[in-house]
Amino acid sequence: MAFTVIAASCPSPKFCLQPKTGIVPHEYMSFNTVISVPPNPCSYNIGYQGHFKSGSLPYKHPVSFPFSASYSYYIQGHMRSGLLPNRYSASSPSQNIITQLVDLAATTREKGAHDFDFKGYMKSKAIAVNEALEKAVPLSHPERITEAMRYSLLGGGKRVRPCLCIAACELVGGTQDLAMPTACAMELAHTSSLIHDDLPCIDNDDLRRGKPTNHKVFGEGIATLAGYALLAFSFEHVAASTSNTIDRSRILRVVSELGRAVGRRGVAGGQVVDIESEGNGSIDLKSLEWIHVHKTAMLLKCSVVCGAIIGGGSKEEIERTRRYAHHVGLLFQNVDDILDVTRSSQELGKTAGKDLSVGKATYPRVMGLQRAKEYGLELVKRAKDELSFFDPVKAAPLLGFADYIAFRKS
Amino acid sequence: MAFTVIAASCPSPKFCLQPKTGIVPHEYMSFNTVISVPPNPCSYNIGYQGHFKSGSLPYKHPVSFPFSASYSYYIQGHMRSGLLPNRYSASSPSQNIITQLVDLAATTREKGAHDFDFKGYMKSKAIAVNEALEKAVPLSHPERITEAMRYSLLGGGKRVRPCLCIAACELVGGTQDLAMPTACAMELAHTSSLIHDDLPCIDNDDLRRGKPTNHKVFGEGIATLAGYALLAFSFEHVAASTSNTIDRSRILRVVSELGRAVGRRGVAGGQVVDIESEGNGSIDLKSLEWIHVHKTAMLLKCSVVCGAIIGGGSKEEIERTRRYAHHVGLLFQNVDDILDVTRSSQELGKTAGKDLSVGKATYPRVMGLQRAKEYGLELVKRAKDELSFFDPVKAAPLLGFADYIAFRKS
Repeated sequence: MAFTVIAASCPSPKFCLQPKTGIVPHEYMSFNTVISVPPNPCSYNIGYQGHFKSGSLPYKHPVSFPFSASYSYYIQGHMRSGLLPNRYSASSPSQNIITQLVDLAATTREKGAHDFDFKGYMKSKAIAVNEALEKAVPLSHPERITEAMRYSLLGGGKRVRPCLCIAACELVGGTQDLAMPTACAMELAHTSSLIHDDLPCIDNDDLRRGKPTNHKVFGEGIATLAGYALLAFSFEHVAASTSNTIDRSRILRVVSELGRAVGRRGVAGGQVVDIESEGNGSIDLKSLEWIHVHKTAMLLKCSVVCGAIIGGGSKEEIERTRRYAHHVGLLFQNVDDILDVTRSSQELGKTAGKDLSVGKATYPRVMGLQRAKEYGLELVKRAKDELSFFDPVKAAPLLGFADYIAFRKS
Repeated sequence: MAFTVIAASCPSPKFCLQPKTGIVPHEYMSFNTVISVPPNPCSYNIGYQGHFKSGSLPYKHPVSFPFSASYSYYIQGHMRSGLLPNRYSASSPSQNIITQLVDLAATTREKGAHDFDFKGYMKSKAIAVNEALEKAVPLSHPERITEAMRYSLLGGGKRVRPCLCIAACELVGGTQDLAMPTACAMELAHTSSLIHDDLPCIDNDDLRRGKPTNHKVFGEGIATLAGYALLAFSFEHVAASTSNTIDRSRILRVVSELGRAVGRRGVAGGQVVDIESEGNGSIDLKSLEWIHVHKTAMLLKCSVVCGAIIGGGSKEEIERTRRYAHHVGLLFQNVDDILDVTRSSQELGKTAGKDLSVGKATYPRVMGLQRAKEYGLELVKRAKDELSFFDPVKAAPLLGFADYIAFRKS
């Protein structure tokens, strides 16, 4: 089962096509090639041959490379469904670059990537994260604010962001211990934004993770201050508790990424635009995605990227994980929106049908339920494509995450 | 004009008295000695001789040192008023330690420490801080949250915290440029806490810096999110914008100090205890100070300490500035409380008499107005004593700050 792909042809003999390998998940086939171009603006013709699902052209075709000493271009296509997992390899025989997709399903299976116990991985990481969070915010004076912080922080939650952070750190060669303060910071910041979002003056929610929201228990004043303190602590924790063994500049990058992810150009900005769009039935897909990218995807992306930064990932590795997480982040909101109209409050652990009742912009509202579901599948595919660059065994948790987020029930 | 002081006598010959020099401000004379004690619990008799104002005994006399490898004990006394500025020196001839206070008024005047133009210094720093803040939070998409952030951030304010930060950085040999991102971060975090404090669910204030409070203009939801975004940005700004020329670990210490100062063990914690104490007419001085240390003094202290950290201060320099700022921070709240009952809303730029009307714990309420004023003067003295360690010319801005905060009218 081999496919021949003419990946690129170019008037300059200088460029080369670097061989890359990676998993191609089942149901679709993607092939990525990385081309280093000479430092001159230059047009390349990109094309491919093979047995592909009709209509699945590369995203850009043909393409003009910008002026750059080195530029990575990803050629992507979709193979017809029903084929087994494959790997691809790329070679550069001459000016006409040939990329061959070779059936490596057997090798992949041998390496155990598809036998990966995702649930077990998640469970063990979540336990470790819970222990670290419990230790990071002990019950101490002044007790009322600490109680309020702990109520929302330790009261359940899937620990998606910290687990993503640890998985990304491990993906690039780091360890769980190295990532833990950063992973906890992501959950601290996330919890702080949930407490504020639930306030009567913002989303006015009574239920969160199956329990009364923070202000329902502690009052609005203390809930506001507990959210504030959790956010402040997220930064303090990264700065004060990350291992001394790593380069300090990595930790500063995490602080910077986290600040950006939750501030006006991130979660808070997304939330403001979301409030402003309420009741606007004519919102388009672009505006909807802007809200979701900022309100939800930014912190997920930040968790993954910061894991890769702390783990010592290269620039390319970090940017790959950033794009992976961008798609997973959109997917997360997409599935949230779909669950809001298809599940009960009891199943979700929060008020169901609420987005619809307040006229909020959601994927099902903008594109219809069926198309929203299809779009979700497309986002899973795009996310997984980015991981084909990495060792399939190390990438298994993040691949599993994409599926987990796509197919979760609450 | 020389005074002889028997500073300490001790059964152990191991301790020593380290010579120290520093300015003694006019109106009173203080003398500090630092004693390193052996790592055993041990009683020392502390005393002095000289022409001192009657009744001004050292704060602790005699004293038992705790079990500690090294402990600093400050002996303080007040000289009768009307004497000119002096320096002191300390020497250790034998077991009976002699501290001599030598008239150095002429030298001090020559160095120009008392000709320092504090108002001009403040004005120039505040202009530079305003420019830096304006640049740090430009009006950009999403506009509504940026407008709300800028409304509170750029709408006046004395820039006390950033100016303190810059002054402390310069005190230990750093520059304004080096301190600026940290200085701005202090104002960003301070503004964020003001916005939240003014919310109806916390202090419910309509007026701040002479203008309607943030939620009165933008609504509670956007005000809450603007405060959140300002806090997040304070950390991001320090991490992303501080000069690359300094050790990264200094910047991480700033992040850590700031997180601690505004979180549950700082501003937010103080605010929660303050809310809980409302209407409790029987609050004692200790509880009152706990609230003020956390609600107000922590961020002032953090501003000074972080300035000294960024400027590359030694451990002793940083701890001196920390103690200076502790007293100035208490003083700040003390004066705020006094102004609340002695000035009009128009003079203050915020609602006057409010603390009294809601039964809040304040210095005048707990100790009476006259005693509160006297206590304020005592705090100025304690703060200035810590600065006697530094070059008097470099310490002039922080000395001026202590007076400025003590004698401000709004």
